[in-house]
Amino acid sequence: MISMQNNLKFIEGGGVTTAEGFLASGVHCGIRKNKSKLDVALIVADRECSAAATCTTNKVKAAPIVMTIDHLQNGKARAVLVNSGCANACAPGGMEAAKATVDAAAAAMGTQPDEFIVASTGVIGVTLPADKIISALPELADTLSRDGTGAAEAIMTTDLFMKTAAVSFTLGGKTVKLGGIAKGSGMIHPNMATMLAFLTTDCAIEPALLQEALKTSTDRTYNRISVDGDTSTNDMAAILANGAAGNPIIAEKGEDFEIFRQALDAVNLKLAKDIAKDGEGATKLITCSVTCAPSEEVAVLVGKSVISSSLVKAALFGADANWGRILCACGYSGAEFEPTLVDIAFSSPAGKIAVCKSGAGLDFDEEVAKKVLSESDVTIEICMNDGTHSAETYGCDLTYDYVKINGDYRS
Amino acid sequence: MISMQNNLKFIEGGGVTTAEGFLASGVHCGIRKNKSKLDVALIVADRECSAAATCTTNKVKAAPIVMTIDHLQNGKARAVLVNSGCANACAPGGMEAAKATVDAAAAAMGTQPDEFIVASTGVIGVTLPADKIISALPELADTLSRDGTGAAEAIMTTDLFMKTAAVSFTLGGKTVKLGGIAKGSGMIHPNMATMLAFLTTDCAIEPALLQEALKTSTDRTYNRISVDGDTSTNDMAAILANGAAGNPIIAEKGEDFEIFRQALDAVNLKLAKDIAKDGEGATKLITCSVTCAPSEEVAVLVGKSVISSSLVKAALFGADANWGRILCACGYSGAEFEPTLVDIAFSSPAGKIAVCKSGAGLDFDEEVAKKVLSESDVTIEICMNDGTHSAETYGCDLTYDYVKINGDYRS
Repeated sequence: MISMQNNLKFIEGGGVTTAEGFLASGVHCGIRKNKSKLDVALIVADRECSAAATCTTNKVKAAPIVMTIDHLQNGKARAVLVNSGCANACAPGGMEAAKATVDAAAAAMGTQPDEFIVASTGVIGVTLPADKIISALPELADTLSRDGTGAAEAIMTTDLFMKTAAVSFTLGGKTVKLGGIAKGSGMIHPNMATMLAFLTTDCAIEPALLQEALKTSTDRTYNRISVDGDTSTNDMAAILANGAAGNPIIAEKGEDFEIFRQALDAVNLKLAKDIAKDGEGATKLITCSVTCAPSEEVAVLVGKSVISSSLVKAALFGADANWGRILCACGYSGAEFEPTLVDIAFSSPAGKIAVCKSGAGLDFDEEVAKKVLSESDVTIEICMNDGTHSAETYGCDLTYDYVKINGDYRS
Repeated sequence: MISMQNNLKFIEGGGVTTAEGFLASGVHCGIRKNKSKLDVALIVADRECSAAATCTTNKVKAAPIVMTIDHLQNGKARAVLVNSGCANACAPGGMEAAKATVDAAAAAMGTQPDEFIVASTGVIGVTLPADKIISALPELADTLSRDGTGAAEAIMTTDLFMKTAAVSFTLGGKTVKLGGIAKGSGMIHPNMATMLAFLTTDCAIEPALLQEALKTSTDRTYNRISVDGDTSTNDMAAILANGAAGNPIIAEKGEDFEIFRQALDAVNLKLAKDIAKDGEGATKLITCSVTCAPSEEVAVLVGKSVISSSLVKAALFGADANWGRILCACGYSGAEFEPTLVDIAFSSPAGKIAVCKSGAGLDFDEEVAKKVLSESDVTIEICMNDGTHSAETYGCDLTYDYVKINGDYRS
């Protein structure tokens, strides 16, 4: 989907502070019991930014989500304050607690409260300990730097690895950078925005176009992953664009806007796949590649259904080529299609094996299938033979550890 | 919902042969490798019956489903032939294999092939070994009896216990009986019909009304359970009514029809709850009782979302009172409601504990909650405080064993 034109390049080790003019920090404020676990992060731009966010579609929205939607009405923001360990959702006094932290952070940074994007992740039903965050603000401010790893670490919950990505590209003769951080790894299901992702760019772009680019990119990336089918109360993807790159401001749709979208998609896709790969308890990333579909909508419906199936996920954990469950998941996806046209194959770095042709099983070598499916990066290839559209969706396997992690999350 | 009027009574040990005029048998024909596992069953009525079935809504339908829908166009049938170990779905020659078995069975029983309801359950993608079933027909015919346990056992796959139920009730001065058998226990998700259930009754009733009663009852019972969110390619609930009870035939809606519906609901609800309780790897039955809802549709939407949530299911496996996940699942159910009105409590034989009031967490005793949730029969009570409607849905917990069973189902 993304062609590598206009010098679009990934930056090794890049993240939320790769774009010019952004600083970040992450410290331990005491929400998490483990003192070595960073639990609050601050991201600050050197000036007022165009800003946009996509938020959860869950009817139950956490206080920080409600506050951020309000703050972004003017399309402007300058900083992000985010904590892990407490979702600040469904708890008395949640809005007051969020307000207290943002007011204090704004005073500390010399900005206005409504210039803050605010987010939380963690247990639902516990009031945010605002005092702990407020006490940590001096340290957060003092440690702001061009190193974004503290912030990337502070937003992690059950994540096993940090999710960061950044690209550079050329726009109007200027080098522009765009990077971000994200966290998973449970309560992840494609339905508008998902999980937390914070992106920064030094691109100059109008807020309305930034919002449109983020919304479209979210649909193509985060909304195409699933870990467990649960859409969180706290999902948010947000972006700040400070214009420091000096490119001619993107104020209308056109070539520059398309280049920006490609860069944004590239970073979001990398972060989204990292979230799927690091799904709670997961041992492998599963990509479902649906091709020759009658429409992109059908390809996405079918692919989401397959990566969300508990039976498919458990079979892949066991490296069992149980393709019947895949065709079954296509069948209840809600998509209109002809099952007798469908071909299915598995592929991975260990090879490729066809298992179903025209809706019926093929004789295949179980040993080879086991080898293909034992890799940590497996693709389910579904060819619908009924059109020219395609889509990729991303998920992970269902493992003992998912059950273990979620049987006693609060302890 | 079901009042115990008209002498509606459960019959201890009753099942698919409790109604007058029905015989059944179950034998091992060799589809399953384990020689002690019965894998094919026959149910036969003493005369032509009114017959009805609800079948899977999956776009991918197994051959026996397609055949049964065709056979029941005239609303009549006389026998059921069903095997476990092979779903006869998505495999070359599936329809021919189904036809061969039914033709042979009809010849053996002296009936017509189109008087057969035919069903299969097991692995998808393998052609039905028709010869094995045909070879077993003499034994199936010879062992037909008033004992329905062989048939109940033969349809089991990963089920741990047989699911049978029967009731008697009075209609027009006559005693009428209705009973059935069902099987779970994976690929179970509420979407029209589900899993396999076979019901027999000696009630006299016209086919069109039988179909309507079965459809409504399926919506209220089987369609309100979920084990893993996967809607099978082979789901079927079917009923035969031979009229042997001698009641005035039910040919229009009225009091008799309502009495029949209550009896049908009672048997189906018992079988549905047994399927949920015996979900793959499950350690407990979870009932979600939604009350004071603005409509029954909202109550069902919310309840289905809660019992289908992997996070809720894993928390209950761990006896963790993580109610935030419940409110979160309500939030993404698609139902319109006001989260700040919702109260949540847990109850079980060990007691009851309120955990959420008006959408916000209550202080509660974790020890007491643990005790309540450690029972094998737990109810999540959700009061929406926004109407007078209610609904119950049924599910089970998500356990290590679910992953184990489904990581290597085909071996």
